[in-house]
Amino acid sequence: MPNTTGQQAPGQQAATLEAFDAVDVIRTKRDDSELSTEQIDWVIDAYTRGAVGDEQMSALAMAIYLNGMTADETAAWTRAMIASGERMDFSGLDQPTADKHSTGGVGDKITLPLAPLVAAFGVAVPQLSGRGLGHTGGTLDKLESIPGWRADLDAEEMLAMLRDPGAVICAAGAGLAPADKKLYALRDITGTVEAIPLIASSIMSKKIAEGTGALVLDVKVGSGAFMKDLASARSLAQTMVALGREAGVETSALLTDMSTPLGRTVGNALEVRESLEVLAGGGPADVVDLTVALAAEMLRLAGRDTGEDAVRDALQDGRAMDVWRTMIERQGGDPDADLPQATETETVTAESDGVLMELDALAVGTASWRLGAGRARKEDAVQAGAGLEIHVKPGEAVRAGQPILPLHSDDSARFGRARESLASAIVVEPAAEGADAAAEPIVLDRIS
Amino acid sequence: MPNTTGQQAPGQQAATLEAFDAVDVIRTKRDDSELSTEQIDWVIDAYTRGAVGDEQMSALAMAIYLNGMTADETAAWTRAMIASGERMDFSGLDQPTADKHSTGGVGDKITLPLAPLVAAFGVAVPQLSGRGLGHTGGTLDKLESIPGWRADLDAEEMLAMLRDPGAVICAAGAGLAPADKKLYALRDITGTVEAIPLIASSIMSKKIAEGTGALVLDVKVGSGAFMKDLASARSLAQTMVALGREAGVETSALLTDMSTPLGRTVGNALEVRESLEVLAGGGPADVVDLTVALAAEMLRLAGRDTGEDAVRDALQDGRAMDVWRTMIERQGGDPDADLPQATETETVTAESDGVLMELDALAVGTASWRLGAGRARKEDAVQAGAGLEIHVKPGEAVRAGQPILPLHSDDSARFGRARESLASAIVVEPAAEGADAAAEPIVLDRIS
Repeated sequence: MPNTTGQQAPGQQAATLEAFDAVDVIRTKRDDSELSTEQIDWVIDAYTRGAVGDEQMSALAMAIYLNGMTADETAAWTRAMIASGERMDFSGLDQPTADKHSTGGVGDKITLPLAPLVAAFGVAVPQLSGRGLGHTGGTLDKLESIPGWRADLDAEEMLAMLRDPGAVICAAGAGLAPADKKLYALRDITGTVEAIPLIASSIMSKKIAEGTGALVLDVKVGSGAFMKDLASARSLAQTMVALGREAGVETSALLTDMSTPLGRTVGNALEVRESLEVLAGGGPADVVDLTVALAAEMLRLAGRDTGEDAVRDALQDGRAMDVWRTMIERQGGDPDADLPQATETETVTAESDGVLMELDALAVGTASWRLGAGRARKEDAVQAGAGLEIHVKPGEAVRAGQPILPLHSDDSARFGRARESLASAIVVEPAAEGADAAAEPIVLDRIS
Repeated sequence: MPNTTGQQAPGQQAATLEAFDAVDVIRTKRDDSELSTEQIDWVIDAYTRGAVGDEQMSALAMAIYLNGMTADETAAWTRAMIASGERMDFSGLDQPTADKHSTGGVGDKITLPLAPLVAAFGVAVPQLSGRGLGHTGGTLDKLESIPGWRADLDAEEMLAMLRDPGAVICAAGAGLAPADKKLYALRDITGTVEAIPLIASSIMSKKIAEGTGALVLDVKVGSGAFMKDLASARSLAQTMVALGREAGVETSALLTDMSTPLGRTVGNALEVRESLEVLAGGGPADVVDLTVALAAEMLRLAGRDTGEDAVRDALQDGRAMDVWRTMIERQGGDPDADLPQATETETVTAESDGVLMELDALAVGTASWRLGAGRARKEDAVQAGAGLEIHVKPGEAVRAGQPILPLHSDDSARFGRARESLASAIVVEPAAEGADAAAEPIVLDRIS
């Protein structure tokens, strides 16, 4: 009954005259045709108000996953998601604004040192962040391990933070791109997450609605990332950069390595501790390098190009740390408080002498998640102290029996499953063959 | 978060240990791999009990639509849908059983004369039928235009009818293939109806669960059918015949023309009236030919091969009519009652002299639906008298102004939209060019 039974959607009241029919829209994409801007506007709006059902949107999402969307369709989809909610406006600020978005990785605590670092140069950073789901951690989960710190600010509090100290990391309000919020939750349970047009429009609708003037995308590549290879990461980055530019946001993207975790800690309080080392002028080279590269790019896009050396100085001389301390205090946190520690520890050791060739990011992220640092469902609580330390990074020598990964959890029953996920994640080879395991540069490419 | 966030389905309770994860199953098909029998058994069972949500099943259905299923997957899917409910068993009957299923067409009243005709030869016909949705009519809707006739029988009443008079047309109980019932309703609103493996498994799961010993499939081809071309109809027929045989049901298929409506009436009471003409030895040639061809095929599969001439005789000498009268009476109907007639009539006339080259089945079906003979939603009522008569069939001569299609409805406001759907459905050409409009044979091919 191809032309008739689709004439009413389940949520569609008899009295409502809808501009389009959900089944016709689904069929258009299913049959690999281009959706019109009018169809996209309608389907996003109708989905937001419930006239298009979850079961219809998930069929459409799968059709988009398998048949793709053109650049025009993706741009229209993004605009429609922005239009589903409110838009923030920072044009009243004296400073330019710049934000960063990471597509998500393991040990990715970069936002923590980055936001105060950029603010130290007079560029305001309105960093709306999320909580973690699955093996990638969430920035808010990390900050919430600081005693007293709260993520929820209203628009006035946020604006006050942007004026002074110049950076704010807080939870996105429910009013920004509500269609995206609903669609993301749906994609998560229907196997339709990993579609470039849907990922790109999801990220960019929130960032454009957030009102930032400049945006640097940190697109992760490798086992711990959405994008497993450079080609798909580049395609995602290009799609997002085009969407940002079209919306008048100065946008560029760095493609960065996520084959192995960033830094030497994975977990909430553990990553805050490492971020503090970076803000104090120390910390692991990969975390520092990436923080500096992203900060320099944000400043460049915001019209305050200073070069990487000047940025690095602001970590060394305490200017970024000063902003951090104010940021944390203003949101109720105590920057000097002791951070929570897990009650139980076990350590994964090396089985042989040699060079660590691989330490798989996905496996480490999954282990951290299983230790209690992440959540399986949105409503789960996370353990502030859970996670793992990375004593040996790829390219470094190890001896049999040497501790590689200390695991931390409040629940010793969790160590078993964490170890399972690490079973094939650690690859050690004899030193001679390990000669080419020299650390790769963290930034693989730039799209601008 | 490809490997972790899918670890819980929305309907899945924390306490339940599921054998599979819905997102993994969806991803398997999305990525064009073959689903295992175990995955299929699980997903159909979990969907039936609500542990897999509609939004997950619709994503899977779209992935199946676009990536297909192998013969093994389709067979497993069908078995799993049968296993979701009860199976009927007619092995206690003295007679063999045979059933017919039509994939749905316009003016397709064949079940009405066919069931009593086959029963007249001592083969019992357990014909579980449905109501119409969209432009194709439903057998039960047609029979319900007979005053007093009721569609709902319990298993004992059904068995009694199969013993005497030997045929029963009634509503399928909710217990047969409940997974299919749920999935069909979902496919209808998510643009995933027209997928051969899903159509085939939907039809065959119900027919196999129904317990018939032999089954003839009437697979329609043309504008008024699911399958618009012979190749896809043949593919559907082959898939279904294989599924039937695998389940131990003697199965064959006729591919029959549905480019133009069957017979000279479309509508509920109108089609009952035409069926009575056929049972009285008259009626339009195409309806008689198809009824006889299907009856002969059913008898052959049931081991009572008589040839078409003997079958035709049973229409001429009143044996089929005798069975019909008992069938109707036993279900509360009065075989001699006047059938309802619509209160309003308008007639579509020929615009020029010539030969009727085309009378499009889909357009006529849609017109009948709009006149009130069909329903847009399951809960809608149908008009018993609504529909249209076909005074001129393709290949026949017409003169300008001659009545072609008398339209009937209880609501004169409906004529306008019915005429709209007929606007380009009627093609008349000058007689010379119309020479090749001779009637096509109704049976196009046989798959056995």
